[in-house]
Amino acid sequence: MNNEIMQLLEGVRDGSLSVEDALLKLKLHPFEDVGYAKVDLHRKTRQGFSEVIYGAGKTPEQMLGIIGVMKQNGQGNILITRLQPEAAEEIRKSEALRYYPEARIGLVGEMPEPGGIGRIVIATGGTSDIPVAEEAALTAEFLGNEVLRLYDVGVAGIHRLFSNLSDIMGASVIIAVAGMEGALASVVGGLADCPVIAVPTSVGYGASFGGLAALLAMLNSCASGVSVVNIDNGFGAGYLAAMINHMK
Amino acid sequence: MNNEIMQLLEGVRDGSLSVEDALLKLKLHPFEDVGYAKVDLHRKTRQGFSEVIYGAGKTPEQMLGIIGVMKQNGQGNILITRLQPEAAEEIRKSEALRYYPEARIGLVGEMPEPGGIGRIVIATGGTSDIPVAEEAALTAEFLGNEVLRLYDVGVAGIHRLFSNLSDIMGASVIIAVAGMEGALASVVGGLADCPVIAVPTSVGYGASFGGLAALLAMLNSCASGVSVVNIDNGFGAGYLAAMINHMK
Amino acid sequence: MNNEIMQLLEGVRDGSLSVEDALLKLKLHPFEDVGYAKVDLHRKTRQGFSEVIYGAGKTPEQMLGIIGVMKQNGQGNILITRLQPEAAEEIRKSEALRYYPEARIGLVGEMPEPGGIGRIVIATGGTSDIPVAEEAALTAEFLGNEVLRLYDVGVAGIHRLFSNLSDIMGASVIIAVAGMEGALASVVGGLADCPVIAVPTSVGYGASFGGLAALLAMLNSCASGVSVVNIDNGFGAGYLAAMINHMK
Amino acid sequence: MNNEIMQLLEGVRDGSLSVEDALLKLKLHPFEDVGYAKVDLHRKTRQGFSEVIYGAGKTPEQMLGIIGVMKQNGQGNILITRLQPEAAEEIRKSEALRYYPEARIGLVGEMPEPGGIGRIVIATGGTSDIPVAEEAALTAEFLGNEVLRLYDVGVAGIHRLFSNLSDIMGASVIIAVAGMEGALASVVGGLADCPVIAVPTSVGYGASFGGLAALLAMLNSCASGVSVVNIDNGFGAGYLAAMINHMK
Amino acid sequence: MNNEIMQLLEGVRDGSLSVEDALLKLKLHPFEDVGYAKVDLHRKTRQGFSEVIYGAGKTPEQMLGIIGVMKQNGQGNILITRLQPEAAEEIRKSEALRYYPEARIGLVGEMPEPGGIGRIVIATGGTSDIPVAEEAALTAEFLGNEVLRLYDVGVAGIHRLFSNLSDIMGASVIIAVAGMEGALASVVGGLADCPVIAVPTSVGYGASFGGLAALLAMLNSCASGVSVVNIDNGFGAGYLAAMINHMK
Amino acid sequence: MNNEIMQLLEGVRDGSLSVEDALLKLKLHPFEDVGYAKVDLHRKTRQGFSEVIYGAGKTPEQMLGIIGVMKQNGQGNILITRLQPEAAEEIRKSEALRYYPEARIGLVGEMPEPGGIGRIVIATGGTSDIPVAEEAALTAEFLGNEVLRLYDVGVAGIHRLFSNLSDIMGASVIIAVAGMEGALASVVGGLADCPVIAVPTSVGYGASFGGLAALLAMLNSCASGVSVVNIDNGFGAGYLAAMINHMK
Amino acid sequence: MNNEIMQLLEGVRDGSLSVEDALLKLKLHPFEDVGYAKVDLHRKTRQGFSEVIYGAGKTPEQMLGIIGVMKQNGQGNILITRLQPEAAEEIRKSEALRYYPEARIGLVGEMPEPGGIGRIVIATGGTSDIPVAEEAALTAEFLGNEVLRLYDVGVAGIHRLFSNLSDIMGASVIIAVAGMEGALASVVGGLADCPVIAVPTSVGYGASFGGLAALLAMLNSCASGVSVVNIDNGFGAGYLAAMINHMK
Amino acid sequence: MNNEIMQLLEGVRDGSLSVEDALLKLKLHPFEDVGYAKVDLHRKTRQGFSEVIYGAGKTPEQMLGIIGVMKQNGQGNILITRLQPEAAEEIRKSEALRYYPEARIGLVGEMPEPGGIGRIVIATGGTSDIPVAEEAALTAEFLGNEVLRLYDVGVAGIHRLFSNLSDIMGASVIIAVAGMEGALASVVGGLADCPVIAVPTSVGYGASFGGLAALLAMLNSCASGVSVVNIDNGFGAGYLAAMINHMK
Repeated sequence: MNNEIMQLLEGVRDGSLSVEDALLKLKLHPFEDVGYAKVDLHRKTRQGFSEVIYGAGKTPEQMLGIIGVMKQNGQGNILITRLQPEAAEEIRKSEALRYYPEARIGLVGEMPEPGGIGRIVIATGGTSDIPVAEEAALTAEFLGNEVLRLYDVGVAGIHRLFSNLSDIMGASVIIAVAGMEGALASVVGGLADCPVIAVPTSVGYGASFGGLAALLAMLNSCASGVSVVNIDNGFGAGYLAAMINHMK
Repeated sequence: MNNEIMQLLEGVRDGSLSVEDALLKLKLHPFEDVGYAKVDLHRKTRQGFSEVIYGAGKTPEQMLGIIGVMKQNGQGNILITRLQPEAAEEIRKSEALRYYPEARIGLVGEMPEPGGIGRIVIATGGTSDIPVAEEAALTAEFLGNEVLRLYDVGVAGIHRLFSNLSDIMGASVIIAVAGMEGALASVVGGLADCPVIAVPTSVGYGASFGGLAALLAMLNSCASGVSVVNIDNGFGAGYLAAMINHMK
Repeated sequence: MNNEIMQLLEGVRDGSLSVEDALLKLKLHPFEDVGYAKVDLHRKTRQGFSEVIYGAGKTPEQMLGIIGVMKQNGQGNILITRLQPEAAEEIRKSEALRYYPEARIGLVGEMPEPGGIGRIVIATGGTSDIPVAEEAALTAEFLGNEVLRLYDVGVAGIHRLFSNLSDIMGASVIIAVAGMEGALASVVGGLADCPVIAVPTSVGYGASFGGLAALLAMLNSCASGVSVVNIDNGFGAGYLAAMINHMK
Repeated sequence: MNNEIMQLLEGVRDGSLSVEDALLKLKLHPFEDVGYAKVDLHRKTRQGFSEVIYGAGKTPEQMLGIIGVMKQNGQGNILITRLQPEAAEEIRKSEALRYYPEARIGLVGEMPEPGGIGRIVIATGGTSDIPVAEEAALTAEFLGNEVLRLYDVGVAGIHRLFSNLSDIMGASVIIAVAGMEGALASVVGGLADCPVIAVPTSVGYGASFGGLAALLAMLNSCASGVSVVNIDNGFGAGYLAAMINHMK
Repeated sequence: MNNEIMQLLEGVRDGSLSVEDALLKLKLHPFEDVGYAKVDLHRKTRQGFSEVIYGAGKTPEQMLGIIGVMKQNGQGNILITRLQPEAAEEIRKSEALRYYPEARIGLVGEMPEPGGIGRIVIATGGTSDIPVAEEAALTAEFLGNEVLRLYDVGVAGIHRLFSNLSDIMGASVIIAVAGMEGALASVVGGLADCPVIAVPTSVGYGASFGGLAALLAMLNSCASGVSVVNIDNGFGAGYLAAMINHMK
Repeated sequence: MNNEIMQLLEGVRDGSLSVEDALLKLKLHPFEDVGYAKVDLHRKTRQGFSEVIYGAGKTPEQMLGIIGVMKQNGQGNILITRLQPEAAEEIRKSEALRYYPEARIGLVGEMPEPGGIGRIVIATGGTSDIPVAEEAALTAEFLGNEVLRLYDVGVAGIHRLFSNLSDIMGASVIIAVAGMEGALASVVGGLADCPVIAVPTSVGYGASFGGLAALLAMLNSCASGVSVVNIDNGFGAGYLAAMINHMK
Repeated sequence: MNNEIMQLLEGVRDGSLSVEDALLKLKLHPFEDVGYAKVDLHRKTRQGFSEVIYGAGKTPEQMLGIIGVMKQNGQGNILITRLQPEAAEEIRKSEALRYYPEARIGLVGEMPEPGGIGRIVIATGGTSDIPVAEEAALTAEFLGNEVLRLYDVGVAGIHRLFSNLSDIMGASVIIAVAGMEGALASVVGGLADCPVIAVPTSVGYGASFGGLAALLAMLNSCASGVSVVNIDNGFGAGYLAAMINHMK
Repeated sequence: MNNEIMQLLEGVRDGSLSVEDALLKLKLHPFEDVGYAKVDLHRKTRQGFSEVIYGAGKTPEQMLGIIGVMKQNGQGNILITRLQPEAAEEIRKSEALRYYPEARIGLVGEMPEPGGIGRIVIATGGTSDIPVAEEAALTAEFLGNEVLRLYDVGVAGIHRLFSNLSDIMGASVIIAVAGMEGALASVVGGLADCPVIAVPTSVGYGASFGGLAALLAMLNSCASGVSVVNIDNGFGAGYLAAMINHMK
């Protein structure tokens, strides 16, 4: 943004840009205001990835409006997270949308070719953690990464994890998805030599308190190289993993 | 107790016991009242183990009074938990007391010969968990058990745990002592085929919230055969392990 | 597992096992991967009990798939916990399943003859705690134990508990199931001379906070020999009780 | 207060009271302002008991000032709660103060003759709960009640409680003081036929969370007739018990 | 109970009671076991009031069974709390039941004539607190008390409370029912000279956390003579108020 | 109120008011009792604004009754908050009610002309926070203020906020509405030179714990001039903003 | 800031400002970097008040450094909050500092003449709340306001509050400072017709949980016009009150 | 580890390794047991970095023992975190230790030359967060990274952050360290296009609850690419940043 300010200032000095236009540009350019939302059209330049629509709390009409603005600005591939089936149904009437019900993700456009430093491994403690893991996996794939899924490898039967040791050891980034006591993150963190993104899930009951137990456990992990995102935040983990896997 | 009521009733019918005496016996026998405490002299019969003095919140004078009553009633071996060094010093002036500073345990009398079904294994996640583990270990030894200590075998370097697999597999009961994320209990629980008593410790900082993180993780353990005692409750774990190791 | 590694290594030395096969065996044997789950076929050897299916968060199709793998591997008796009535209905179309609606438990195969050291007593504080108690009872029976049910013996009318004193005193293991203030565990723990497994339930309202009050009370029990499992975790209590009742 | 307003209004109508004086009376009479405190001189009329000084957070000078105002207004007997030993020392230089260190209570003047409906029984779970119990006991005695102390009768050795059954059954009001799991209140509440005031204490460690476990347990008591005051609030319990014991 | 033991013992000595019968009496008399519940038939003698059925978590069939046992034992008037409309409908098919939908209370039999020391005043902070207040009011009336309802007198418009000052000042016991910040209990406690039972309600939103805010506020009340029951526990407050109003 | 007491007293002295009438006036005037509610007819004089009906937990019948009393007392413009669509439907049958479904607000009568010191700016972090913001906006407009809405200007794309800097800098009062991490309040508070009222919302998931994360963040804001209202309390923020914007 | 950007841009167009200088100005002007702190020299222009030093966690040397930079930039009057006595002692060696020990506030320079719309009233529930109240009072006075202190007027003796009704009614802004149950804010909020800033304090014990009880109560206040700042945040309340009292 | 197992198995087949030796190697190699600790000598191979000593809860003697083992195994550069000044003093008697008191870090050996993809930027919200930031900075430098420190750039004066925009935009990884409301992480996360590691600190008071407020805020960050470590865990953040900055 600094560079842009520099260019704006130079434009003003050159006379190629009026003061009013410069001010306008500063104010109006980076997003488009559709009333209920200010669509960020700048993020790709600023952060390297396209805008993603967070579907929770938005009506199908609002989402269609945002998709429209994005397409007009040249974004062909759009990911919608936390998309309810009914809303997906509604959007599909106007847009070619692929819907992944388990992950509650909708995709307008195409998945890109995978790239990046290496492979992102996504492991889950149990079967019930798969929806969150799929949100992470599809997000990472949407952002151009190869993903390997290792599901149901929780620590209660630790040989299931160990039989996949070479995949763990060879990963570029690992996403450890687990509810209940969330011990998977610590065990994986102790074995791997790459960044581990821990995703606590709300899977469990009683003293799991909606994922709090797993969250606290992961934050207190005695293994190094582990960091944590919000409970059930598969998208956040997939996004960060993609970022790390594209470091240069 | 039921049998005693039966015997009392029969005594009354026989005339060998007056009504007043029976009532008195019901009321006065099982403990001795020293004002600030009602010393339970019955527990050995009732629960199979001697009374243990919980030292926290008692003055040296009070503890000496309780020891006196116990000795008069034939209890030669007495364990005092949560005993501060200064209080130990004070008690030692009147009683032959062996003091274990790390475990904050005092012992009047002798450790018995170990017995029971097998060996109790006590594992800790780290070095800082050792005081709690020692409280458990000494309690179990005081109650007549063989104890094997496996310290600093936390999951961040899981090969340390695995190099002791045969001890884990051969244990009669396991006590898993860990702070931070408390994952040790789950991993041990998944490997062993014996009861695992999990002891969360207050070791950690920040979001460990004084042991809450480890406590919740252990309660949510996805491994079967795991149960949990209070944070830092080494005594409780040692006592229960001894009980299980003496099942018959 | 140590022994198996030893045997594997010896097999390799003998030439009776190729390196690749040994590695394969280490990796593939102990479970079968059905995609959404890695079915643990080893647990019986490793932990002495058959695999149990945790039904929460699994579709009937997934459960049928797991049952199929188990049966192919010679497991005739299978327990499914947290099984919703609709899912039970669905499974029953393909498998001979006995369903216990109160406990939300499904059983494929037969209950074994009871064995073990003695009798497991399961006590509840009130009528509303019965579903959790039944989960514990059926689990213990499935694992080959005799179970005595003492329901609605909470401390508010403590004579109800005391009239069953001889059963309490004669138990091998006791499971104390209670919501609200969870005092049952402490009172039973003070009376009995066997291990007491406390199960807090989510029965209550207001400041019970979904079972938190009972959980904290049980963790702080001043009685020795008491340990705690997760809120509403009848299965975990039944499993641990069975383990203790089969100590040798 | 209503009656006083009525009298004031009548006085104004009579001409025996000027409007200004009436207003003044309404505003200035009931307390005396010493700057850092507004000493309530009305409470005895309004609530039937004398003002008590809550010593926490007040300097000895402030307390002496308040005592002075009280005495000038005819209050000879004054209770100070939460009084630190050093502050007591300081006050004793100017006032004849009896100090009870365990209960952290100071008394200016004399204890009255006991009266009321019957006897207040104060029971504690353990020895460590005695300071809170003594705060309750001395408060109740200061307010003119006979008090019976039953200390260390917790539920872990329930026969200690039962050997005092006739005192429990004969009480007018019972104060149950307990930390840890706080089960004493429920058990007493189930046995007695009088109001039970439960006082959770901060005695305990780990998951007692400073008395939270006992507090929640007592609030969830399944016994009827039980109500709860703040953690360690011996004064509040003693005051309320006195009030109930003087019902008419 | 002590007296009964005494009588039993004397009966045994007299020969008027065999040992077996005495033991049987001790065990079987005070309740009747209907499988899912142990109906307490003793409470009236022991606690002065009839058994009340806590309807939550009980089926209509179970409640009808309990009512049947009670009636056979001579209890004509029975109160059922937390009774859902559908369950009331079901019970009404077999029993003459009066149902109070707002309070979720069912009554078999008749309300008694009011008695006791004086009048119980029940005040609420707002309109939404009325269901809890009505549970308290009907319970108190069922237990033979005169009740005065003062609804919607919360502290945000404190003149509404003050215009009822004479009722407040003249009460025998006050029940203060309030959600949100629960300040009503403190203000009433400061004005009245009788015991105040505070009932926090779950009325509110956001940071009321289901009644936690009101609960904590009431526990910390700076007014003397205030004690607290569980969130939304109108029954508990009504029962205790009745007990206090019948002190003698 | 003081002045009114003065006038009452003078009226009594003058003989123009009997004692009984004065007392009656003190008691009955400021509100009207409709049984389930005590309608405050005084607030306009006392607090400068009309009574607002809090619709949650009130039936349409109750609300109609309150509206009726208000109208009889000359209040033509009435705001109802937390009004469910079905209840609005019901009320509309008897009253000319305008209903704003997003804000769940109903309006009887007319919006006044805007006045006050300046303009109230209402900013939200995201699209999902709009319902709470609209509750604030309509409340402020109902109380006679000009409102500017800046929606979806959260800190994740901070240039959206900065392009509206002149509106922020020129505001009289700002209401910052945000869920999730609630950082909007701090950033706005650091930029603006006017009071900022922070409204945490329950928008979010996982570790937002129903708005707790945003609430705590806002309370800990390192920016000066920021204060906080309850989670989702748009009404409270709008009311306070109106009050501040009408300071004189 | 917008205006400044406008001016900068115009300066660049005029040629009166080089592009590099403009960029530099944007970056360097508003604060001075002293390594451990970036002293904000802009806030007076931006927010209307001088910078205040938050003393907690800063060494005397650091604070002296910051004071030096401020003075060089023409700020003669500086307030330091959370200043420990020892640090004040140290600073006093180099600077003329007035220190208010109760409020832990230090003042360099002079208090200004009071101004603003009216008078700020600061009320406390008890004597122990005075330190927080004094922090608020001195802050408000430092920012040019007249302050009236009403200490120890808590709701347990509500006549103390009512005898000061005319001060309450006549205030421009009220700061209500209270610990324990924090009811003062609601009662004051119901009486006054001006903004009320509620400051929960950590005064209390047990279930006050360090001020949490008062905080939650104040956030749930049923009175309109009340907003809340952090626990013990006297400074924040004084600052906001000053801001509101200087609205124009 | 997989590769090692392969090599071991091949060695056994070759006859170059006996079965017993292979088993021994599996068990004993990767760490050295010094009783109170099992020193991990494998981590460098396994995870790419040297072992770091976590100093909290270890005596100087224990730390010296661990240093000794490490040095014998060829590790010349050793970092000790959470090292108290007194312990550092003690260690310095035997080892050449450089001690950084603010960060509580000790260094044996030398800092390496910086390498990696780019520069790690460490930003703090305030001056009080510097100790945690320094722990992160020294850890990252120890692991071979260039570090840029941007201290005291919190959002309350957001221009301080913006004047460093080019450093933010050009970072390889950013560590955002903040207490209180923790908003820095979200703002930085919205501006930067690289991974952001958020470190909540325990800086704050009242409702910061020891860093909980900042922790929750950071977990709920609406900016993508942000993950979180434990409260005050500067080491964990520095370690993970180093890992990411060395991706290849």
